[in-house]
Amino acid sequence: MQEFELLNRVFALNASLPPSVTLGPGDDMAALQLATGTSTILVAADSAVEGVHTPLGGDAYDLGRKAVLRNLSDVAAMANARPLAVLACAMIPKGTEPARIWRLFSGVRETAMTWHAPLVGGDTTVVTDQSALCVAVTILATRVDESAPIVTRANALAGDGVYVTGSIGGAWDRTTGLGRHLNFAPRLEVAQSLARLLGTRLHAMIDVSDGLAQDLAHIARASAVTIDLELARVPVAPGWEARLAVAHGEDYELAFTAVGEVPPLLEGVPISRIGTVRAGAGALMLVEGDRSQPATDAGWEHAT
Amino acid sequence: MQEFELLNRVFALNASLPPSVTLGPGDDMAALQLATGTSTILVAADSAVEGVHTPLGGDAYDLGRKAVLRNLSDVAAMANARPLAVLACAMIPKGTEPARIWRLFSGVRETAMTWHAPLVGGDTTVVTDQSALCVAVTILATRVDESAPIVTRANALAGDGVYVTGSIGGAWDRTTGLGRHLNFAPRLEVAQSLARLLGTRLHAMIDVSDGLAQDLAHIARASAVTIDLELARVPVAPGWEARLAVAHGEDYELAFTAVGEVPPLLEGVPISRIGTVRAGAGALMLVEGDRSQPATDAGWEHAT
Repeated sequence: MQEFELLNRVFALNASLPPSVTLGPGDDMAALQLATGTSTILVAADSAVEGVHTPLGGDAYDLGRKAVLRNLSDVAAMANARPLAVLACAMIPKGTEPARIWRLFSGVRETAMTWHAPLVGGDTTVVTDQSALCVAVTILATRVDESAPIVTRANALAGDGVYVTGSIGGAWDRTTGLGRHLNFAPRLEVAQSLARLLGTRLHAMIDVSDGLAQDLAHIARASAVTIDLELARVPVAPGWEARLAVAHGEDYELAFTAVGEVPPLLEGVPISRIGTVRAGAGALMLVEGDRSQPATDAGWEHAT
Repeated sequence: MQEFELLNRVFALNASLPPSVTLGPGDDMAALQLATGTSTILVAADSAVEGVHTPLGGDAYDLGRKAVLRNLSDVAAMANARPLAVLACAMIPKGTEPARIWRLFSGVRETAMTWHAPLVGGDTTVVTDQSALCVAVTILATRVDESAPIVTRANALAGDGVYVTGSIGGAWDRTTGLGRHLNFAPRLEVAQSLARLLGTRLHAMIDVSDGLAQDLAHIARASAVTIDLELARVPVAPGWEARLAVAHGEDYELAFTAVGEVPPLLEGVPISRIGTVRAGAGALMLVEGDRSQPATDAGWEHAT
């Protein structure tokens, strides 16, 4: 059983969420309505573990930074959202040098502050010396425009174009563990500009963390539409081919669907049209020339 | 270097917190003011680790429950606060049975829901099989009365009485690891009633997690006052003596200071007066009959 399914099964037990929860779990962030006023608060949590998300024995600063960047990417994926604050809980293997813990929290604090999100809480727990160094970060965000909606995964509509920012593939070198995934620029500015520019023409958005194919499949399922992804149009990183790139993951770009004109460049970030949304049963189709194949059959989407 | 000092040093680097942070890190929760409206959001994060916070090899439900209870106790300590939602990040050692992960998240979800806080997000990360099973929980809360302040550690005033709820000592059996700390009732109701009943006469509050002596010392330092704690007045658990009980920890009761009348029983919870606040330099004094001794000299407060 994979994470996606297990957590979704847990969340599904939330039969009756209070009215304060305006967007339940399962999207990039959840949304909460405060009892008084119209303010919406957005929240998400993501961890980073040494040896999983960063190479073993590296600078602990990288681990703290990546945990925050992953969360900032979730904020970007709501489009009409800006970071408000972060909290960080660290699991520290017994015997870890204080300087290393310091580097971890510096990575958290400095990265968050770069995006105007102060570190406002957290804790440290000493665990057995055989444990992995971990940090769990929670991010809070607010809407940029309180009169406009946030952009979820669940509103892609037949006729929308499908787009992706930047390039896909090569974020993670499987031999060295190094690469762009360790220090990427979360797409907050382009996301906010898209929300402002397209308004209600911007229908669905997700950040590309699991791999472009799998993340587009999340949109297709959540929106109950079919997405045709044209492999030849995917903007791949130098030296990569589309078939591998869309399954690679950790690109931390944004994939979105919108109707009408979308600029090819915004905030200095290229935007590529890579497909089309049509009516259908929540599937992702991989299109190459005349051939079209469900992504699950092709093995490019992980079974969940 | 202990957690308290290291995290405080990290937080101290936040030289210029944005105006949205109305209560910075270091209290039981931080408080954030949303850009629009007058809504305040409270946040805190606390972890639970198997083998540290619960006995090794026990029901993982207990671990999830305790992580949430610790966070609920932080909400109680703000007095004028009610839980809004929780998020949970779990570190799962490789090879852990899915049923155990399920129990962990059930403990989180059900405990939070008991206190009307839905589980709205989180993640799971598979870590090495030698790692400890951990869960990091973040809790969000709102004020019960939006026109009244929250109650921090920093506003104890000379002349206040010092009080504690319930009884102190014996929450954790050092031989078995079992005890009340695994399944306590967070003091939310009595905290909210105190806020309503005493209003601005309720000056400072903290939850008793590090041990009564250490937690009162936190209030004394944050408020820049001296607290005289009368050991003979501490309501100790059966079979315990005050000197040990105040250093024990994990009681998850509330300690607070207030001026004027305080009821001896509220919401079914006994409330005991245990000392007095006076002007001074941020110290906790342990008083026994005619003798008075700084808590740090007596070794009852951990050096930080």
